[in-house]
Amino acid sequence: MTRNALDTPAPDQLYAQIQQFYALHMGLLDDGAVDAWASFFTPDAVFEDNTTPEPLRGREAIRATVRTRVEHLRAERRQFRHWFGMVDVAVQPDGELHTRMYALAMSTVVDGPLRIHGHVVCRDRLIPRGGSWTVHNRRVEVDGV
Amino acid sequence: MTRNALDTPAPDQLYAQIQQFYALHMGLLDDGAVDAWASFFTPDAVFEDNTTPEPLRGREAIRATVRTRVEHLRAERRQFRHWFGMVDVAVQPDGELHTRMYALAMSTVVDGPLRIHGHVVCRDRLIPRGGSWTVHNRRVEVDGV
Amino acid sequence: MTRNALDTPAPDQLYAQIQQFYALHMGLLDDGAVDAWASFFTPDAVFEDNTTPEPLRGREAIRATVRTRVEHLRAERRQFRHWFGMVDVAVQPDGELHTRMYALAMSTVVDGPLRIHGHVVCRDRLIPRGGSWTVHNRRVEVDGV
Repeated sequence: MTRNALDTPAPDQLYAQIQQFYALHMGLLDDGAVDAWASFFTPDAVFEDNTTPEPLRGREAIRATVRTRVEHLRAERRQFRHWFGMVDVAVQPDGELHTRMYALAMSTVVDGPLRIHGHVVCRDRLIPRGGSWTVHNRRVEVDGV
Repeated sequence: MTRNALDTPAPDQLYAQIQQFYALHMGLLDDGAVDAWASFFTPDAVFEDNTTPEPLRGREAIRATVRTRVEHLRAERRQFRHWFGMVDVAVQPDGELHTRMYALAMSTVVDGPLRIHGHVVCRDRLIPRGGSWTVHNRRVEVDGV
Repeated sequence: MTRNALDTPAPDQLYAQIQQFYALHMGLLDDGAVDAWASFFTPDAVFEDNTTPEPLRGREAIRATVRTRVEHLRAERRQFRHWFGMVDVAVQPDGELHTRMYALAMSTVVDGPLRIHGHVVCRDRLIPRGGSWTVHNRRVEVDGV
Protein backbone atom coordinates (compact mmCIF):
# COMPACT_ATOMS: atom_id res chain seq x y z
CA MET A 1 0.00 0.00 0.00
CA THR A 2 2.66 2.49 1.19
CA ARG A 3 0.74 5.60 0.16
CA ASN A 4 2.39 8.85 1.08
CA ALA A 5 1.32 12.43 1.35
CA LEU A 6 2.24 13.15 -2.26
CA ASP A 7 -0.01 10.43 -3.62
CA THR A 8 -3.29 11.53 -5.12
CA PRO A 9 -6.13 9.01 -5.38
CA ALA A 10 -7.08 8.19 -8.95
CA PRO A 11 -9.83 10.32 -10.49
CA ASP A 12 -12.82 8.10 -11.02
CA GLN A 13 -12.67 7.93 -14.82
CA LEU A 14 -9.01 7.04 -14.75
CA TYR A 15 -9.78 4.19 -12.38
CA ALA A 16 -12.18 2.58 -14.82
CA GLN A 17 -9.66 3.08 -17.63
CA ILE A 18 -7.00 1.21 -15.65
CA GLN A 19 -9.34 -1.71 -14.95
CA GLN A 20 -10.08 -2.00 -18.66
CA PHE A 21 -6.33 -1.72 -19.35
CA TYR A 22 -5.60 -4.79 -17.22
CA ALA A 23 -8.52 -6.80 -18.62
CA LEU A 24 -7.18 -6.21 -22.12
CA HIS A 25 -3.49 -6.61 -21.25
CA MET A 26 -3.79 -9.87 -19.33
CA GLY A 27 -6.52 -11.23 -21.64
CA LEU A 28 -3.98 -11.00 -24.47
CA LEU A 29 -1.50 -13.07 -22.47
CA ASP A 30 -4.12 -15.70 -21.62
CA ASP A 31 -5.04 -15.86 -25.32
CA GLY A 32 -1.39 -16.60 -26.09
CA ALA A 33 -0.82 -13.25 -27.87
CA VAL A 34 2.60 -12.73 -26.28
CA ASP A 35 3.78 -10.02 -28.68
CA ALA A 36 0.65 -7.96 -28.11
CA TRP A 37 0.92 -8.50 -24.34
CA ALA A 38 4.61 -7.48 -24.34
CA SER A 39 3.84 -4.32 -26.31
CA PHE A 40 2.26 -2.94 -23.08
CA PHE A 41 5.75 -2.69 -21.54
CA THR A 42 8.26 0.11 -22.18
CA PRO A 43 11.47 -0.96 -23.99
CA ASP A 44 13.40 -0.55 -20.71
CA ALA A 45 10.77 -2.15 -18.46
CA VAL A 46 11.84 -4.17 -15.42
CA PHE A 47 9.84 -7.21 -14.26
CA GLU A 48 10.56 -8.39 -10.71
CA ASP A 49 9.15 -11.58 -9.23
CA ASN A 50 9.77 -12.91 -5.71
CA THR A 51 10.11 -16.47 -7.05
CA THR A 52 13.07 -15.52 -9.28
CA PRO A 53 16.48 -14.26 -8.07
CA GLU A 54 17.07 -11.73 -10.85
CA PRO A 55 14.56 -9.34 -12.44
CA LEU A 56 13.92 -9.43 -16.17
CA ARG A 57 15.41 -6.28 -17.73
CA GLY A 58 13.92 -4.91 -20.92
CA ARG A 59 10.83 -5.72 -22.98
CA GLU A 60 12.71 -8.22 -25.14
CA ALA A 61 13.80 -10.27 -22.13
CA ILE A 62 10.25 -10.15 -20.72
CA ARG A 63 8.79 -11.23 -24.04
CA ALA A 64 11.27 -14.08 -24.58
CA THR A 65 10.81 -15.50 -21.07
CA VAL A 66 7.04 -15.32 -21.18
CA ARG A 67 6.91 -16.77 -24.70
CA THR A 68 8.74 -19.85 -23.44
CA ARG A 69 6.21 -20.23 -20.61
CA VAL A 70 3.26 -19.82 -22.98
CA GLU A 71 4.67 -22.44 -25.36
CA HIS A 72 5.05 -24.83 -22.45
CA LEU A 73 1.41 -24.26 -21.43
CA ARG A 74 0.31 -24.84 -25.01
CA ALA A 75 2.23 -28.14 -25.14
CA GLU A 76 0.40 -29.21 -21.97
CA ARG A 77 -2.93 -28.03 -23.46
CA ARG A 78 -3.30 -25.95 -20.30
CA GLN A 79 -5.49 -22.81 -20.44
CA PHE A 80 -3.96 -20.33 -18.01
CA ARG A 81 -5.90 -17.36 -16.56
CA HIS A 82 -4.54 -14.29 -14.81
CA TRP A 83 -7.37 -12.72 -12.85
CA PHE A 84 -6.67 -9.22 -11.50
CA GLY A 85 -8.89 -7.50 -8.94
CA MET A 86 -8.96 -5.07 -6.01
CA VAL A 87 -7.12 -2.51 -8.12
CA ASP A 88 -5.73 0.50 -6.26
CA VAL A 89 -4.45 3.41 -8.35
CA ALA A 90 -2.41 6.35 -7.06
CA VAL A 91 -1.55 9.23 -9.39
CA GLN A 92 1.97 10.59 -8.85
CA PRO A 93 2.95 14.27 -9.16
CA ASP A 94 4.87 13.51 -12.38
CA GLY A 95 1.85 11.86 -13.99
CA GLU A 96 2.97 8.29 -13.42
CA LEU A 97 0.52 5.85 -11.90
CA HIS A 98 1.40 3.48 -9.11
CA THR A 99 -1.03 0.58 -9.09
CA ARG A 100 -1.47 -2.35 -6.74
CA MET A 101 -3.69 -5.31 -7.59
CA TYR A 102 -4.50 -8.73 -6.27
CA ALA A 103 -4.16 -11.53 -8.80
CA LEU A 104 -5.23 -15.15 -8.88
CA ALA A 105 -3.30 -17.50 -11.14
CA MET A 106 -5.40 -20.45 -12.29
CA SER A 107 -5.44 -22.97 -15.09
CA THR A 108 -7.38 -25.85 -16.62
CA VAL A 109 -6.06 -28.68 -18.77
CA VAL A 110 -8.34 -30.27 -21.36
CA ASP A 111 -10.97 -32.36 -19.56
CA GLY A 112 -9.33 -31.48 -16.22
CA PRO A 113 -10.52 -29.56 -13.18
CA LEU A 114 -9.74 -25.92 -12.48
CA ARG A 115 -6.51 -25.56 -10.53
CA ILE A 116 -5.87 -22.34 -8.59
CA HIS A 117 -2.11 -21.98 -8.34
CA GLY A 118 -1.79 -19.14 -5.90
CA HIS A 119 -2.47 -15.57 -4.91
CA VAL A 120 -0.22 -12.73 -5.97
CA VAL A 121 0.14 -9.03 -5.24
CA CYS A 122 1.17 -7.13 -8.36
CA ARG A 123 2.52 -3.55 -8.28
CA ASP A 124 3.05 -1.58 -11.48
CA ARG A 125 4.51 1.79 -12.37
CA LEU A 126 2.57 2.95 -15.41
CA ILE A 127 3.72 5.71 -17.79
CA PRO A 128 1.33 7.48 -20.17
CA ARG A 129 1.61 6.65 -23.88
CA GLY A 130 -0.72 7.88 -26.61
CA GLY A 131 -3.92 8.09 -24.55
CA SER A 132 -3.20 4.80 -22.77
CA TRP A 133 -0.47 3.43 -20.51
CA THR A 134 2.68 1.32 -20.55
CA VAL A 135 4.23 -0.71 -17.77
CA HIS A 136 7.64 0.66 -16.76
CA ASN A 137 8.07 -1.56 -13.71
CA ARG A 138 6.14 -4.60 -12.52
CA ARG A 139 6.76 -6.22 -9.16
CA VAL A 140 5.01 -9.54 -8.50
CA GLU A 141 4.90 -11.04 -5.02
CA VAL A 142 3.50 -14.53 -4.72
CA ASP A 143 1.92 -15.08 -1.28
CA GLY A 144 3.70 -17.67 0.87
CA VAL A 145 7.09 -17.23 -0.82
CA MET B 1 -10.62 -10.73 -27.71
CA THR B 2 -10.69 -10.45 -31.54
CA ARG B 3 -10.75 -6.67 -31.55
CA ASN B 4 -10.73 -5.10 -34.98
CA ALA B 5 -10.03 -1.67 -36.34
CA LEU B 6 -13.68 -0.63 -36.04
CA ASP B 7 -13.82 -1.36 -32.32
CA THR B 8 -13.70 1.62 -30.01
CA PRO B 9 -12.65 1.10 -26.39
CA ALA B 10 -15.41 1.79 -23.92
CA PRO B 11 -15.61 5.37 -22.61
CA ASP B 12 -14.71 5.24 -18.94
CA GLN B 13 -18.17 5.97 -17.52
CA LEU B 14 -19.72 3.31 -19.69
CA TYR B 15 -17.21 0.80 -18.37
CA ALA B 16 -18.30 1.35 -14.79
CA GLN B 17 -21.94 1.12 -15.85
CA ILE B 18 -21.33 -2.28 -17.44
CA GLN B 19 -19.60 -3.61 -14.33
CA GLN B 20 -22.60 -2.54 -12.24
CA PHE B 21 -24.89 -4.11 -14.86
CA TYR B 22 -23.25 -7.52 -14.41
CA ALA B 23 -23.17 -7.29 -10.62
CA LEU B 24 -26.92 -6.65 -10.62
CA HIS B 25 -27.77 -9.13 -13.40
CA MET B 26 -25.85 -12.08 -12.00
CA GLY B 27 -26.70 -11.20 -8.38
CA LEU B 28 -30.37 -11.65 -9.30
CA LEU B 29 -29.65 -15.12 -10.65
CA ASP B 30 -27.68 -16.12 -7.55
CA ASP B 31 -30.59 -14.85 -5.41
CA GLY B 32 -32.90 -17.18 -7.35
CA ALA B 33 -34.79 -14.30 -9.04
CA VAL B 34 -34.89 -16.07 -12.40
CA ASP B 35 -37.62 -13.88 -13.94
CA ALA B 36 -35.75 -10.69 -13.07
CA TRP B 37 -32.48 -12.21 -14.37
CA ALA B 38 -34.14 -13.33 -17.62
CA SER B 39 -35.60 -9.84 -18.18
CA PHE B 40 -32.04 -8.69 -19.01
CA PHE B 41 -32.21 -10.70 -22.27
CA THR B 42 -33.93 -9.58 -25.48
CA PRO B 43 -36.96 -11.68 -26.51
CA ASP B 44 -34.91 -13.17 -29.38
CA ALA B 45 -31.69 -13.65 -27.37
CA VAL B 46 -29.41 -16.60 -28.11
CA PHE B 47 -27.42 -18.33 -25.33
CA GLU B 48 -24.54 -20.52 -26.49
CA ASP B 49 -22.54 -22.76 -24.18
CA ASN B 50 -19.65 -25.02 -25.16
CA THR B 51 -20.93 -27.78 -22.87
CA THR B 52 -24.27 -28.00 -24.73
CA PRO B 53 -24.71 -29.06 -28.38
CA GLU B 54 -27.52 -26.63 -29.25
CA PRO B 55 -27.86 -22.97 -28.20
CA LEU B 56 -30.92 -21.79 -26.30
CA ARG B 57 -33.01 -19.62 -28.62
CA GLY B 58 -35.25 -16.94 -27.15
CA ARG B 59 -35.70 -15.46 -23.67
CA GLU B 60 -38.43 -17.96 -22.80
CA ALA B 61 -36.18 -20.94 -23.51
CA ILE B 62 -33.35 -19.33 -21.54
CA ARG B 63 -35.66 -18.62 -18.61
CA ALA B 64 -37.19 -22.11 -18.58
CA THR B 65 -33.83 -23.89 -18.72
CA VAL B 66 -32.26 -21.75 -16.04
CA ARG B 67 -35.33 -21.99 -13.80
CA THR B 68 -34.96 -25.77 -13.81
CA ARG B 69 -31.30 -25.45 -12.81
CA VAL B 70 -32.12 -23.00 -10.03
CA GLU B 71 -34.84 -25.31 -8.66
CA HIS B 72 -32.34 -28.15 -8.65
CA LEU B 73 -29.84 -26.03 -6.70
CA ARG B 74 -32.54 -25.05 -4.22
CA ALA B 75 -33.47 -28.70 -3.66
CA GLU B 76 -29.80 -29.40 -2.88
CA ARG B 77 -29.66 -26.34 -0.60
CA ARG B 78 -26.70 -25.22 -2.70
CA GLN B 79 -25.90 -21.50 -2.88
CA PHE B 80 -24.44 -20.87 -6.32
CA ARG B 81 -22.32 -17.79 -7.18
CA HIS B 82 -21.41 -16.41 -10.58
CA TRP B 83 -18.42 -14.14 -10.16
CA PHE B 84 -17.58 -11.98 -13.20
CA GLY B 85 -14.33 -10.05 -13.52
CA MET B 86 -11.72 -8.75 -15.96
CA VAL B 87 -14.48 -7.11 -17.99
CA ASP B 88 -13.47 -5.84 -21.44
CA VAL B 89 -15.96 -3.61 -23.28
CA ALA B 90 -15.75 -2.60 -26.95
CA VAL B 91 -18.27 -0.14 -28.38
CA GLN B 92 -19.37 -1.02 -31.92
CA PRO B 93 -20.17 1.55 -34.65
CA ASP B 94 -23.89 0.71 -34.43
CA GLY B 95 -23.96 1.36 -30.65
CA GLU B 96 -23.87 -2.30 -29.62
CA LEU B 97 -21.39 -3.35 -26.99
CA HIS B 98 -19.24 -6.43 -27.30
CA THR B 99 -18.08 -7.54 -23.86
CA ARG B 100 -15.75 -10.26 -22.72
CA MET B 101 -15.48 -11.32 -19.09
CA TYR B 102 -13.87 -14.00 -17.01
CA ALA B 103 -16.25 -15.85 -14.69
CA LEU B 104 -15.78 -18.22 -11.80
CA ALA B 105 -18.63 -20.59 -11.00
CA MET B 106 -18.67 -21.61 -7.34
CA SER B 107 -21.13 -22.96 -4.81
CA THR B 108 -21.57 -23.92 -1.18
CA VAL B 109 -24.06 -26.39 0.30
CA VAL B 110 -25.33 -25.85 3.83
CA ASP B 111 -22.51 -26.64 6.28
CA GLY B 112 -20.29 -27.59 3.35
CA PRO B 113 -17.05 -26.17 1.96
CA LEU B 114 -16.83 -23.77 -0.95
CA ARG B 115 -16.53 -25.64 -4.24
CA ILE B 116 -15.12 -23.83 -7.28
CA HIS B 117 -16.57 -25.57 -10.31
CA GLY B 118 -14.57 -24.00 -13.09
CA HIS B 119 -13.45 -20.99 -15.03
CA VAL B 120 -15.44 -19.58 -17.90
CA VAL B 121 -15.01 -16.94 -20.58
CA CYS B 122 -18.29 -15.15 -21.27
CA ARG B 123 -18.86 -12.97 -24.35
CA ASP B 124 -22.00 -10.84 -24.69
CA ARG B 125 -23.49 -8.65 -27.36
CA LEU B 126 -25.40 -5.93 -25.51
CA ILE B 127 -28.09 -3.71 -27.04
CA PRO B 128 -29.18 -0.42 -25.45
CA ARG B 129 -32.61 -0.34 -23.79
CA GLY B 130 -34.03 2.56 -21.80
CA GLY B 131 -30.77 3.89 -20.37
CA SER B 132 -29.45 0.40 -19.64
CA TRP B 133 -28.61 -2.70 -21.67
CA THR B 134 -30.01 -6.05 -22.73
CA VAL B 135 -28.17 -9.21 -23.72
CA HIS B 136 -28.81 -10.14 -27.36
CA ASN B 137 -26.23 -12.91 -27.52
CA ARG B 138 -24.25 -14.67 -24.80
CA ARG B 139 -21.49 -17.14 -25.55
CA VAL B 140 -20.08 -19.10 -22.62
CA GLU B 141 -16.89 -21.12 -22.97
CA VAL B 142 -15.94 -23.30 -20.04
CA ASP B 143 -12.14 -23.78 -19.85
CA GLY B 144 -10.98 -27.34 -20.44
CA VAL B 145 -14.00 -28.36 -22.54
CA MET C 1 -30.33 -7.27 -3.48
CA THR C 2 -33.72 -5.98 -2.18
CA ARG C 3 -33.75 -2.86 -4.31
CA ASN C 4 -36.84 -0.75 -3.93
CA ALA C 5 -38.45 2.01 -5.92
CA LEU C 6 -36.59 4.70 -3.99
CA ASP C 7 -33.19 3.27 -4.83
CA THR C 8 -31.21 5.07 -7.49
CA PRO C 9 -28.43 3.22 -9.28
CA ALA C 10 -25.00 4.64 -8.61
CA PRO C 11 -23.79 7.33 -11.02
CA ASP C 12 -20.91 5.86 -12.95
CA GLN C 13 -18.11 7.90 -11.39
CA LEU C 14 -19.32 7.08 -7.91
CA TYR C 15 -19.22 3.39 -8.78
CA ALA C 16 -15.52 3.54 -9.63
CA GLN C 17 -14.87 5.52 -6.46
CA ILE C 18 -16.50 2.81 -4.35
CA GLN C 19 -14.46 0.06 -6.00
CA GLN C 20 -11.28 1.98 -5.20
CA PHE C 21 -12.57 2.54 -1.66
CA TYR C 22 -12.85 -1.21 -1.05
CA ALA C 23 -9.48 -1.99 -2.66
CA LEU C 24 -7.82 0.49 -0.29
CA HIS C 25 -9.90 -0.41 2.78
CA MET C 26 -9.44 -4.18 2.58
CA GLY C 27 -5.86 -3.90 1.34
CA LEU C 28 -5.03 -2.11 4.61
CA LEU C 29 -6.50 -5.00 6.59
CA ASP C 30 -4.58 -7.60 4.58
CA ASP C 31 -1.40 -5.57 5.17
CA GLY C 32 -2.07 -5.78 8.91
CA ALA C 33 -2.77 -2.04 9.25
CA VAL C 34 -5.72 -2.60 11.60
CA ASP C 35 -5.94 0.98 12.89
CA ALA C 36 -6.03 2.39 9.38
CA TRP C 37 -8.61 -0.23 8.35
CA ALA C 38 -10.78 0.53 11.41
CA SER C 39 -10.69 4.27 10.66
CA PHE C 40 -13.03 3.56 7.73
CA PHE C 41 -15.85 2.80 10.22
CA THR C 42 -17.97 5.41 12.01
CA PRO C 43 -17.52 5.55 15.82
CA ASP C 44 -20.98 3.95 16.24
CA ALA C 45 -20.59 1.39 13.43
CA VAL C 46 -22.23 -2.04 13.74
CA PHE C 47 -20.59 -5.16 12.26
CA GLU C 48 -22.89 -8.17 11.87
CA ASP C 49 -21.66 -11.62 10.85
CA ASN C 50 -23.79 -14.73 10.42
CA THR C 51 -21.12 -16.87 12.10
CA THR C 52 -21.30 -14.86 15.35
CA PRO C 53 -24.35 -14.60 17.63
CA GLU C 54 -23.92 -10.92 18.58
CA PRO C 55 -22.90 -8.02 16.33
CA LEU C 56 -19.85 -5.94 17.17
CA ARG C 57 -21.03 -2.49 18.30
CA GLY C 58 -18.75 0.50 17.84
CA ARG C 59 -15.48 1.10 16.03
CA GLU C 60 -13.43 0.27 19.13
CA ALA C 61 -15.03 -3.17 19.48
CA ILE C 62 -14.54 -3.82 15.76
CA ARG C 63 -10.90 -2.76 15.94
CA ALA C 64 -10.12 -4.83 19.05
CA THR C 65 -11.73 -7.99 17.69
CA VAL C 66 -10.06 -7.73 14.31
CA ARG C 67 -6.69 -6.87 15.85
CA THR C 68 -6.81 -10.15 17.77
CA ARG C 69 -7.54 -12.04 14.56
CA VAL C 70 -4.73 -10.31 12.70
CA GLU C 71 -2.26 -11.09 15.49
CA HIS C 72 -3.31 -14.73 15.32
CA LEU C 73 -2.71 -14.79 11.55
CA ARG C 74 0.70 -13.18 12.03
CA ALA C 75 1.66 -15.83 14.61
CA GLU C 76 0.72 -18.50 12.06
CA ARG C 77 2.68 -16.63 9.35
CA ARG C 78 -0.54 -16.75 7.33
CA GLN C 79 -1.12 -14.06 4.67
CA PHE C 80 -4.86 -13.47 4.52
CA ARG C 81 -6.61 -11.85 1.52
CA HIS C 82 -10.10 -10.37 1.32
CA TRP C 83 -11.08 -10.18 -2.32
CA PHE C 84 -14.20 -8.11 -3.05
CA GLY C 85 -15.97 -8.16 -6.39
CA MET C 86 -19.33 -7.87 -8.14
CA VAL C 87 -19.96 -4.58 -6.34
CA ASP C 88 -23.51 -3.22 -6.53
CA VAL C 89 -24.08 0.35 -5.32
CA ALA C 90 -27.48 1.96 -4.69
CA VAL C 91 -27.69 5.65 -3.75
CA GLN C 92 -30.35 6.37 -1.14
CA PRO C 93 -32.49 9.55 -1.05
CA ASP C 94 -30.62 10.75 2.06
CA GLY C 95 -27.22 10.39 0.34
CA GLU C 96 -26.27 7.13 2.02
CA LEU C 97 -25.00 4.30 -0.15
CA HIS C 98 -26.19 0.73 0.18
CA THR C 99 -23.60 -1.60 -1.29
CA ARG C 100 -23.57 -5.33 -1.84
CA MET C 101 -20.41 -7.22 -2.78
CA TYR C 102 -19.22 -10.76 -3.18
CA ALA C 103 -16.07 -11.61 -1.23
CA LEU C 104 -13.65 -14.50 -1.27
CA ALA C 105 -11.64 -15.14 1.87
CA MET C 106 -8.33 -16.85 1.13
CA SER C 107 -4.95 -17.29 2.76
CA THR C 108 -1.48 -18.74 2.29
CA VAL C 109 0.99 -19.82 4.98
CA VAL C 110 4.72 -19.57 4.28
CA ASP C 111 5.68 -22.28 1.78
CA GLY C 112 2.07 -23.50 1.80
CA PRO C 113 -0.62 -23.70 -0.88
CA LEU C 114 -3.38 -21.13 -1.33
CA ARG C 115 -6.43 -22.02 0.76
CA ILE C 116 -9.81 -20.52 -0.19
CA HIS C 117 -11.85 -20.44 3.00
CA GLY C 118 -15.25 -19.52 1.68
CA HIS C 119 -17.54 -17.17 -0.16
CA VAL C 120 -19.25 -14.27 1.55
CA VAL C 121 -21.88 -11.70 0.69
CA CYS C 122 -21.07 -8.34 2.30
CA ARG C 123 -23.60 -5.51 2.59
CA ASP C 124 -22.56 -2.04 3.77
CA ARG C 125 -24.31 1.19 4.59
CA LEU C 126 -21.84 3.94 3.71
CA ILE C 127 -22.06 7.54 4.95
CA PRO C 128 -20.19 10.41 3.26
CA ARG C 129 -17.19 11.86 5.08
CA GLY C 130 -14.83 14.48 3.69
CA GLY C 131 -15.02 13.50 0.03
CA SER C 132 -14.90 9.80 0.82
CA TRP C 133 -17.04 7.32 2.76
CA THR C 134 -17.30 5.57 6.11
CA VAL C 135 -18.96 2.28 6.96
CA HIS C 136 -21.91 2.74 9.30
CA ASN C 137 -23.17 -0.82 9.10
CA ARG C 138 -21.58 -3.96 7.66
CA ARG C 139 -23.45 -7.24 7.37
CA VAL C 140 -21.42 -10.30 6.36
CA GLU C 141 -23.12 -13.54 5.36
CA VAL C 142 -20.88 -16.53 4.83
CA ASP C 143 -22.39 -18.95 2.29
CA GLY C 144 -23.39 -22.30 3.73
CA VAL C 145 -23.90 -21.04 7.29
